[in-house]
Amino acid sequence: MESTEILDKENSSTASAKEGAVVTIVGVGLISGSFALALKEKGFAKKVIGVSRTEASLQKAKQLGIIDVALPLEEAVKQSDFIYVAIPVDATITVMKQIMDLLTDKQMVADAGSTKFVLCDALKDHPMRHRFIATHPMWGTEYSGPEAAVTGAFTGRACVICEKEKTDLDVVTYVENIYKTLGMNMVYMDAHSHDIHAAYISHISHITSFALANTVLEKEKEEDAIFALAGGGFESTVRLAKSSPAMWAPIFMQNRENLLDVLNEHISQLRKFKASLEKENLEYLIELMENANKIKRILQ
Amino acid sequence: MESTEILDKENSSTASAKEGAVVTIVGVGLISGSFALALKEKGFAKKVIGVSRTEASLQKAKQLGIIDVALPLEEAVKQSDFIYVAIPVDATITVMKQIMDLLTDKQMVADAGSTKFVLCDALKDHPMRHRFIATHPMWGTEYSGPEAAVTGAFTGRACVICEKEKTDLDVVTYVENIYKTLGMNMVYMDAHSHDIHAAYISHISHITSFALANTVLEKEKEEDAIFALAGGGFESTVRLAKSSPAMWAPIFMQNRENLLDVLNEHISQLRKFKASLEKENLEYLIELMENANKIKRILQ
Repeated sequence: MESTEILDKENSSTASAKEGAVVTIVGVGLISGSFALALKEKGFAKKVIGVSRTEASLQKAKQLGIIDVALPLEEAVKQSDFIYVAIPVDATITVMKQIMDLLTDKQMVADAGSTKFVLCDALKDHPMRHRFIATHPMWGTEYSGPEAAVTGAFTGRACVICEKEKTDLDVVTYVENIYKTLGMNMVYMDAHSHDIHAAYISHISHITSFALANTVLEKEKEEDAIFALAGGGFESTVRLAKSSPAMWAPIFMQNRENLLDVLNEHISQLRKFKASLEKENLEYLIELMENANKIKRILQ
Repeated sequence: MESTEILDKENSSTASAKEGAVVTIVGVGLISGSFALALKEKGFAKKVIGVSRTEASLQKAKQLGIIDVALPLEEAVKQSDFIYVAIPVDATITVMKQIMDLLTDKQMVADAGSTKFVLCDALKDHPMRHRFIATHPMWGTEYSGPEAAVTGAFTGRACVICEKEKTDLDVVTYVENIYKTLGMNMVYMDAHSHDIHAAYISHISHITSFALANTVLEKEKEEDAIFALAGGGFESTVRLAKSSPAMWAPIFMQNRENLLDVLNEHISQLRKFKASLEKENLEYLIELMENANKIKRILQ
C-alpha cells in the first residue's frame, strides 16, 4: 500500500474543460446517470448518448433528460469524444475491450467501477491502453437505475485514479478536470492497493449490511414489529442491504481474496464481542467498545 | 411476542397536558436533555431540575437552557411532579428504587432505558410500582452528554411502553400525552418481548458497527487512506461505533441472552457470505443478497 498518494483539494491541473464534447455513457444507471447530469450542468457535454441492453432504461433516461439519444455501442463510440462506462464490473471487461478495439487516438474512455485490479490486468496489453483511464468515484447510494440518478452527486468525495502513468496526459487532465469540477478529491494508487482499501472501506460495509438484513429477516418474523420499531440506528446499518445484487455480486467476486481477509477479521471481531457477553466480562466489553470509538478520530 | 400491540398514530388519549409541572431529569445527557428541551417547548414543564453525578454536565446543561436548577436527587424528587430517568441501565435500577422510596401517590416517574426486563423485574414488588411507567422512546444519536441534546428529537419514532397495566391510568395518560405531543407512535408490549425486539432492531446494529470499526482499525493501518476514501456507505455503517460505552455496555449485558441469540445468527449469516466467496458460488451469493433486499419491503 506504499503507493498510496493523496493530493489535497487544491486543483493542480490548469486544463480547460473540453466544452461541448459528445459523451457516451455505457449503462444508464445511478453512477452514469448522475455523471451525465453533472456533465451537462457543468457544460462538459453538448450531447450525451446512452448505451444499454435495457430498452426501458434508455427510455427512462431520455425522459429524465439524462441522455439525448440512445444508440448501439459501436455507433455511439464512433460519434463520441469521451466514453464513460459504469456497468457491473464483470461486464465491464468485455465491453471495455469492444470499445477499445474501436477507439482512435483522439478519443478517451474511462470506467467507474468499484474494483480495479482485474480490469487493469485484462487491459494492460491492449494497444489503446493509453486512451483508457481507470477511475473509481467513491460515491453512491443504495438505489439503482436511471431514476436513482441525482444532480449534485460526487461532491466532497474521493475519486481514485489507478495506474495514471499508463494513460496519456491529455486523457488524465481531461478526466481529472471533470471530477475536480464536480468537487471530488483526487487520490492516486495502484490497482491492487485500491482493491485492498475498497475491501476495507466499502465492500465489507455492504457485506455486513446484507448479512444484518438477513439476520433480522431470519430471526424477526414479526415484520410489523420491525416496521414499527426500527429507528435511525437500524436503518443506517441496513441501508446498504437494499443495494443491487447485479452490481455488487461481481464486485465481491472480483475482490474476493481481499474481501475474505477482511471478512475473516470481522467475524473474529464479532466473536470477541460474543466472548465478552458469554463470560459477562464487562471490562473486556468496554475495552472493545472504547477501541471502536477511535474511529471518531478518523471520521470527521 | 404475541403481546405486541401496535396502535396507529391517531391520538386516542384526550388527556390535557399537565402544564407547568415541575420536572426532574435524572441524567443530563442526549435523551434526558432532548426530552427536557421538548417539555419546555411544548409547555409541559414550568421548571426543570437536573440531577447528575457530574458537576460539569450540570453546569453545561444550565448554560444550554436544558435545566433551570441542579439539585441532589432527594431534594429534586421532593419538589417534582414528574421525574424522568435516563442514565445507564445498570445505574437505573438503584436510582429508580431510591426515587420510588421517596415517591408519593401524586408523583410520577418514568425511565427511558433501552432494556426493560431486568428493570421491570427489579421493581415489580415495590409499593410505588403503580406510579412508575416503563418507557423506551426509540430515538437516539451516536453522541452523548448535554451538548448532544437537540430540539425536535423523538418525532416520527416509536415509543415502547411496557407493562402498562401495572401503572396507574393517570400516569399512563400523562406520559403518553407527552410522547404523542412530541410526535411519537406508541407501541405496547411486555418487557421480555421488548428486549427481544430491541436486540434484533437496535442492539445488534450497535454490535456490528463496533465490530466493523475494530475490523477496519485492525486491518487498515493507513488512517489517511480511511480518511480519504471513506464514503457514505462506510460512514453510515460505522456511525454507531462512536456510541458511548458507558451507556451501551450495560444495555448489552442486561440483554445478553437475546443479543447472543441474534449475534450467533449474524455470524452464521456472515459465514454464508464467506462460503459463497470461498467457493466462488456467484449464484448463492446473489441469492443471499436478493434475500437481504427484502428488507426494502419493510423499511419504507
